[in-house]
Amino acid sequence: MLTKRSDNFSKWYNELVSKAQLAENSSVRGCMVIKPYGFSIWESMKNELDKKFKATGHQNAYFPLFVPKSLFEAEEKNAEGFAKECAVVTHYRLKNSGKDGKLIVDPEAKLEEELIVRPTSEAIIWRTYKNWIQSYRDLPLLINQWANVVRWEMRPRLFLRTAEFLWQEGHTAHSTKKEAEDEALLINDLYADFVENYMAIPVIKGLKSESERFAGAVETHCIEALMQDGKALQAGTSHFLGDNFAKAFNVKFANQNGNLEYVWATSWGVSTRLMGALIMTHSDDKGLVLPPNLAPTQVVIVPIFKGKEQLEEISIVAKKIKDELESKNVRVQFDNRENLKPGFKFAEHEMKGIPIRVAIGPKDIEKDQLELARRDTEEKIFIKQSFVLNEVEKILKEIHVNLFERAKKFLEENITEVDNYDDFKNVINQKGGFVYAYWDGTTETEEKIKKETKATIRCIPYSSSSKGKCVLTGKKSSQKVYFAKSY
Amino acid sequence: MLTKRSDNFSKWYNELVSKAQLAENSSVRGCMVIKPYGFSIWESMKNELDKKFKATGHQNAYFPLFVPKSLFEAEEKNAEGFAKECAVVTHYRLKNSGKDGKLIVDPEAKLEEELIVRPTSEAIIWRTYKNWIQSYRDLPLLINQWANVVRWEMRPRLFLRTAEFLWQEGHTAHSTKKEAEDEALLINDLYADFVENYMAIPVIKGLKSESERFAGAVETHCIEALMQDGKALQAGTSHFLGDNFAKAFNVKFANQNGNLEYVWATSWGVSTRLMGALIMTHSDDKGLVLPPNLAPTQVVIVPIFKGKEQLEEISIVAKKIKDELESKNVRVQFDNRENLKPGFKFAEHEMKGIPIRVAIGPKDIEKDQLELARRDTEEKIFIKQSFVLNEVEKILKEIHVNLFERAKKFLEENITEVDNYDDFKNVINQKGGFVYAYWDGTTETEEKIKKETKATIRCIPYSSSSKGKCVLTGKKSSQKVYFAKSY
Repeated sequence: MLTKRSDNFSKWYNELVSKAQLAENSSVRGCMVIKPYGFSIWESMKNELDKKFKATGHQNAYFPLFVPKSLFEAEEKNAEGFAKECAVVTHYRLKNSGKDGKLIVDPEAKLEEELIVRPTSEAIIWRTYKNWIQSYRDLPLLINQWANVVRWEMRPRLFLRTAEFLWQEGHTAHSTKKEAEDEALLINDLYADFVENYMAIPVIKGLKSESERFAGAVETHCIEALMQDGKALQAGTSHFLGDNFAKAFNVKFANQNGNLEYVWATSWGVSTRLMGALIMTHSDDKGLVLPPNLAPTQVVIVPIFKGKEQLEEISIVAKKIKDELESKNVRVQFDNRENLKPGFKFAEHEMKGIPIRVAIGPKDIEKDQLELARRDTEEKIFIKQSFVLNEVEKILKEIHVNLFERAKKFLEENITEVDNYDDFKNVINQKGGFVYAYWDGTTETEEKIKKETKATIRCIPYSSSSKGKCVLTGKKSSQKVYFAKSY
Repeated sequence: MLTKRSDNFSKWYNELVSKAQLAENSSVRGCMVIKPYGFSIWESMKNELDKKFKATGHQNAYFPLFVPKSLFEAEEKNAEGFAKECAVVTHYRLKNSGKDGKLIVDPEAKLEEELIVRPTSEAIIWRTYKNWIQSYRDLPLLINQWANVVRWEMRPRLFLRTAEFLWQEGHTAHSTKKEAEDEALLINDLYADFVENYMAIPVIKGLKSESERFAGAVETHCIEALMQDGKALQAGTSHFLGDNFAKAFNVKFANQNGNLEYVWATSWGVSTRLMGALIMTHSDDKGLVLPPNLAPTQVVIVPIFKGKEQLEEISIVAKKIKDELESKNVRVQFDNRENLKPGFKFAEHEMKGIPIRVAIGPKDIEKDQLELARRDTEEKIFIKQSFVLNEVEKILKEIHVNLFERAKKFLEENITEVDNYDDFKNVINQKGGFVYAYWDGTTETEEKIKKETKATIRCIPYSSSSKGKCVLTGKKSSQKVYFAKSY
């Protein structure tokens, strides 16, 4: 049994990640092992995103894991704020110490220049693009990379903040500012579409404030989701980088008139963090709840039997149903393990979030029926065996819609508009969720609010233009923004 | 134009990799950038292999990039010979030096224990399996990982030997020796099937000699291919690890009687090295030659036109053909770039190895025909436009068969049986290819031959048992083995 969400959300999360066999801590501090079940969910996300990237003209490529320190220096001038917590490779050889089988770092194998394990790849990629881009004919470059990256984390948490994580990072180059701006927006919309329609997680779309922007970005678009504990989670970001990286790495192209211009850039990414968003949006006190798109197994069939003979009889029906469903691309598992009781199996399948459970016992065989249980609502119905395909296809769609609508309702109920700072603090501290309030647009105000409430500006919605007074300073404001505590 | 293979094979290879847009060196010594075109070929291999792994019951997972040094020490006792050329992370932070925007490694951020960037993951995975395996019910564990690995290479070459490369590594755990032995064999057969039937590269299957075995393996199965310059290339290996890793990491399971036993293991992998094998098996002096399975574009349509009007007329036909072929999952590109001459386009498509080129000019429109050119044989035929789908589907199959048969013939012609050492040396030095000869089974003989001829034992075929005399020592031998110089 899991700790209840209402008792200790963070403990519930950790237990669920472990008991649903999603991931675990490794013997390397801050680095996780993504277990087969968790990884198959990530693979499903990855495949769907990859399709969407390709459908919008992007290609995959692969760039080095390491970035020479000097490339960071070029970027550093441009992006002072970039985090420097990263893994530094200083040597390229171990040797036997000659004692007790111990290995030591060979002092003679010191690198002339240290290599950084990529925390993100703008530097190495723009160094590469410099050679790829000569003329407007070479543009746009629309490239994505699936990769592992490393950022040293002092307080790691599985999927949410790990030293190593998996992600995709898109890096595009364009001949005009407008085209790059459009690309950044296109991708943010693509992310929102994916997260809402594939993962059933509603999001708020918009821009980051200056202090929350990616270092080196001119504008950062984002999608923000709301977790069940009332904290926001940044689910994806898409940056318009202006010509900052082109200038840092001196990347110019000859335009149609033969004049040299700097190249315009975007970068964008989502990561295994989405696994955290998935868990904390839909799951309950019995375990993981999976939207059908993401479920490695969408339907599990559990036989209720005593003895070999009953199992055999049920197996015939179960296998027929399995074949029928699989012929329509439903992912089915027949759980015919003999040493485990149905109740144990039910709990395990609930923990793993399998959307539909089919139970078949001897009486069901007699009556030509089966029991169908939904993971999301815990409803159970009996249906005729011949209706199973229709019913399963219908319910899988319903589960997706229900999960999305439930989360959307929760999100809407947890956006609170306030017009004074007392209410702001009360809502942030007690109710949680997003607070929607006027902000005077200054970093000072943002920082003061952060210091006093731990809430930050998560998102400036695109359509926020209106007139009012800043919730903290009372100064004139032309925009309402979303504040929240966040992961 | 490329250097000719007969003039300088190695130069030809490097030029081809560059001109066909497959990969390039990066600003990090020994690390490559895999360009979009090269990466899409690798993706095709990856997808097909992944399907095969899953079809044989394997699951993907993900383990950390880093391995603590102490885990290598545990393994080291078991595998003295393991290469120690690897990237060592010693620090976790950079900081501003305060001078000229230079960054320095923060001396206060030294790791207590160094982390090694994985050269392979047996150590970290078996440390993890220790927690996953308690009883026979937890076995077998059939896990694969797609990952990047790093081995410091002193003489890097694109795809063939790079410091960082991409691969898959399978790591399985079994309750019996027999089951693990069968798994290692199953995977080697899976590799052979993939390389022969998907990549059209014929291979020799068999075992490695002791000195060529993976450190820590009891038996290494391999597939060996022959490149056009007469050198062998190891295309994949599958290791039966015995209980060596279980002992090194103390991984035991309770058998059905409740007694504790060590777990049996395998590991197996193929890498981006297969890109090198692909290039050096099929390609010619005009560039890459791709088996249709691997070709990102299988058919390119080139319009032969003067002026907008002709282009428009041809485009209507070209698009109709494109739609028709795509409806049957043929991958088609319509190269309607206006500023480039047909001859330039032809050369580019040849360089990139596109299997079939369709050319359509105004006369072809009149005659309701088109020109179809095969990349592999350079044959050209004219066919009626309505025959294009049938013809393309037929020729794509023929190209695969032709490439395989051509390479198979080359392989067979370059296996030379010898029964004395003079012939051995002559063949290795002049003709090249595989020399098939009796070997007395000792490491001394193998080493002497290697020292004198640079040829090593590439493969001991499964069915090599016969009686004869060692080609070097004249001692009794019960096996003929394949020697060759190799990549």
